[in-house]
Amino acid sequence: MVKRRLPRHVGFIPDGNRRWATDRGLAKQDGYAHGIEPGLRLSDQCMSLGIEEVTIYCFTKDNLKRPSAQQARFTEASVAFAHAIADRGAAVLVVGDERSAKFPRELLDYRERRGDGMKVNLLMNYGWEWDLDGLRGDGLRSKDVSRLDLIVRWGGGRRLSGFLPVQSVYADFYIREELWPDFEPDQFDAALTWFAQQDQTLGG
Amino acid sequence: MVKRRLPRHVGFIPDGNRRWATDRGLAKQDGYAHGIEPGLRLSDQCMSLGIEEVTIYCFTKDNLKRPSAQQARFTEASVAFAHAIADRGAAVLVVGDERSAKFPRELLDYRERRGDGMKVNLLMNYGWEWDLDGLRGDGLRSKDVSRLDLIVRWGGGRRLSGFLPVQSVYADFYIREELWPDFEPDQFDAALTWFAQQDQTLGG
Repeated sequence: MVKRRLPRHVGFIPDGNRRWATDRGLAKQDGYAHGIEPGLRLSDQCMSLGIEEVTIYCFTKDNLKRPSAQQARFTEASVAFAHAIADRGAAVLVVGDERSAKFPRELLDYRERRGDGMKVNLLMNYGWEWDLDGLRGDGLRSKDVSRLDLIVRWGGGRRLSGFLPVQSVYADFYIREELWPDFEPDQFDAALTWFAQQDQTLGG
Repeated sequence: MVKRRLPRHVGFIPDGNRRWATDRGLAKQDGYAHGIEPGLRLSDQCMSLGIEEVTIYCFTKDNLKRPSAQQARFTEASVAFAHAIADRGAAVLVVGDERSAKFPRELLDYRERRGDGMKVNLLMNYGWEWDLDGLRGDGLRSKDVSRLDLIVRWGGGRRLSGFLPVQSVYADFYIREELWPDFEPDQFDAALTWFAQQDQTLGG
């Protein structure tokens, strides 16, 4: 494999689970469970490449406007993913508003990072306003999440949707049209190839 | 013309002036002056479409790492643009750290918006950290700039480069490969056509 400049920290926005389900005649909420296995394959790919840190957009406070059947299923999928990735040796941190009942109780222990594998930050019940409100006190609520180099979004949307506004300020943004459950490793590989061709001036 | 859903507020990142100059055998700093006339044409286009508010990324605190010859010329171009757009009846607001000598003295009167034409916000000596630091006190320093619907960047870069992190949270992001001095109205027209096809769920 050709040696490329690798991002230190990559953010993933795995969008399109509901459209994927609808395309197959399934109920929208049935899509989320099909996002778990792709997430584990992508994480394995990151680990074997030696990427230091990844952040995955699991669900937000805004997503809680959705029907309760969807909420139940994206929460369930997020919890299952957290346990599975921790079992693979990742140093998991769950970032989100844990004062709300929508924060999964079974993940409270992950509010502090443990372990020394690849850092995996999972945003759950996250909100950009909640995050920035921390600046009125001790600092950003996501302060244990470092600056992002690259953000990859599936499902064709060309927006951040509130994803870590501070850590995203200088991130390169790469979009895939495929829906998230259709993830294949060559898609992330294309993102890395593209990333290696970008300059990093940081405004200078 | 076909009726399209129009963005209420559009952000512009007019990148590529230096590359444009280099491509023509000019000194890098000579590119900035060639960005003024395209900016006026784009603003005229926005006004005739009835867009309510636009924000233009003129220069940032990070840009002040560049050689002083470049700083002098991008400041000069930004000031000339501000006067020209005000003369066209725009309601101009200049947003940036005015406590620094890098903030153009001749634009101090534009720290408060005047007039009732199209709102035109010009970011000069702007910094995302400076902006967010306001949250420790009275609120965001760019609080008179509203939420963005669409951001258009020229010059091929796929990043925000610190552009209004709060107002950008749900903005759709459209990239043009052309360098900014090569702006033509059909480029923004393509952005608007694309924008009208995007859904706006705001996470719901």
